[in-house]
Amino acid sequence: MQNWRISWRRKKRKNTGITLIGAGTIGLSFAALHLKHLNDPSQLVIYDTRPDLREYISSTLPKYLSSNLHDAIQHIKLFNTPSTLPAAVQNATIIQEQGPENLPFKQQIWASLEAHAPSSALLRSSTSGIPASAQARFLHPSTRKRLLVVHPYNPPHIMPLLEVVPSPETASSIILRTEAFWKARGREPVVVHKEMTGFVANRLAFALLREAIHLVKEGVVSVEDVDRIVTSSMGPRWAVWGPFKSYRAGGGSGGLEAFFKNIGGTAQECWNDAGRENVGEGWEREVFRQCENRFGMVDTVVRDMTTEGVLKAAKRPDR
Amino acid sequence: MQNWRISWRRKKRKNTGITLIGAGTIGLSFAALHLKHLNDPSQLVIYDTRPDLREYISSTLPKYLSSNLHDAIQHIKLFNTPSTLPAAVQNATIIQEQGPENLPFKQQIWASLEAHAPSSALLRSSTSGIPASAQARFLHPSTRKRLLVVHPYNPPHIMPLLEVVPSPETASSIILRTEAFWKARGREPVVVHKEMTGFVANRLAFALLREAIHLVKEGVVSVEDVDRIVTSSMGPRWAVWGPFKSYRAGGGSGGLEAFFKNIGGTAQECWNDAGRENVGEGWEREVFRQCENRFGMVDTVVRDMTTEGVLKAAKRPDR
Repeated sequence: MQNWRISWRRKKRKNTGITLIGAGTIGLSFAALHLKHLNDPSQLVIYDTRPDLREYISSTLPKYLSSNLHDAIQHIKLFNTPSTLPAAVQNATIIQEQGPENLPFKQQIWASLEAHAPSSALLRSSTSGIPASAQARFLHPSTRKRLLVVHPYNPPHIMPLLEVVPSPETASSIILRTEAFWKARGREPVVVHKEMTGFVANRLAFALLREAIHLVKEGVVSVEDVDRIVTSSMGPRWAVWGPFKSYRAGGGSGGLEAFFKNIGGTAQECWNDAGRENVGEGWEREVFRQCENRFGMVDTVVRDMTTEGVLKAAKRPDR
Repeated sequence: MQNWRISWRRKKRKNTGITLIGAGTIGLSFAALHLKHLNDPSQLVIYDTRPDLREYISSTLPKYLSSNLHDAIQHIKLFNTPSTLPAAVQNATIIQEQGPENLPFKQQIWASLEAHAPSSALLRSSTSGIPASAQARFLHPSTRKRLLVVHPYNPPHIMPLLEVVPSPETASSIILRTEAFWKARGREPVVVHKEMTGFVANRLAFALLREAIHLVKEGVVSVEDVDRIVTSSMGPRWAVWGPFKSYRAGGGSGGLEAFFKNIGGTAQECWNDAGRENVGEGWEREVFRQCENRFGMVDTVVRDMTTEGVLKAAKRPDR
């Protein structure tokens, strides 16, 4: 039985041909993530129309990978001209696109893939904002049910979150398979039940960012102060427990209801007084200036290594 | 020189008499923090009018401390009747109150302390919402300049943040001494330059919470989904880098300006569509229910141990 399961799993893995469309930051990070989990690196295909694709992959992808996986990079199959798109997807079980963020591009690429990829291939978009239903508009219904958004939190080889945002036409079986796929790779897929603008993670983060911009604009704190505040309070707290569990704990035996009985007045006062800054309203110059003065160019390699340590430290048996 | 510095520092430490007014969760946590840093635990005084103060401190404070500090607890000086308030503060260098969150209580306690504490004592309020200027209204100007808010992020023996919120009358020398005091204890004091409603940390967190409540109310995600999203994305990210540094990195060599050129449209759409739920508008029942169903009573000891690990992992030389 044990042996059968192992060989069955090997077999399943062997059939997972993954094609990534687009090799920007997100594409490279996904490539790194998949290389860690594929038994055979030649099952990974990258399609990107940059002429120097092979040199680019060879020089940049190693930064995302531990040295024992550097040899695997040369086995990735690369395609970099439009005429090779059919070959790039012909054996794909899974296709994930992270191309330009515009609707005509997405609609066109899916139409091409509908013609050339296996009719069972799972179709995933890394878009941060274009709903699957819009992307799928001109596809055959049997293709539409295989297409959904899988929005990573950059960079996906480090950050566990994947927002799985189906369209109303995505088949529930496809959603389940998508969740299982990412869970098997140690990721945290979360299904978002409506195609909300900006999905969920960005909406939450942008709500906090808007208030932060307001407080900087009002001279209450600097951008550096905001970051010091967040990294020494809600950042580490929310690495361990999310806001609802945290505030629920704040209410003791009375739960979130007791918390709101106690602090609801203050919360409402903060909400009444909250910032309503918009893009282009003139706060930008000062906020951008403070960011450049304080941070300048920043080293994401250090960030990613540190974040891996944080994620490890935050992992507990009850989660 | 080296010896002189050591003895000078010892002498400074020896003169730091700390009186905590109020021994609730925050008071106990501050007591634990101070015990770790005081050479002589009898320099710590706790005033709280609960009749069983000694038994209460003996039974609850050990939970906040490693076992090598349990013996120190018996040396804390305890006072639990109003008539002993003068004795509780007579040798205090620093007094921090975490009493009931109502203005008359704060104004009255500071009036008593003005009469009985040394005229050089630093006066700190742990309030999460009552500005120092309101608390100090009826005090002598020489007392007002020594009073400010030092708002912890609960629990302060674990979480590094202290929001230092002076009134316009607080002396700048007092603000500097307050910052230096907390930095010497490995904390992250951040001076907030205006007495904004809710200060800064709660305003930021409540902005995100409001949007989270909106998304749960709209059926986009559950409270558990929100927490899974946050703990697998912005939580660990913001434990390492705050939102401004993170988004600045997102813009590459073009900085935050490039980030907004790229994603500003999406951010604005999220802001236009953001939730505007208020306390008492009917979302509570479902949100509270989901919290109780999913989390029930939660163990803050595990949270705190895990958070200590996260903070250690997030600490880097460049911060």
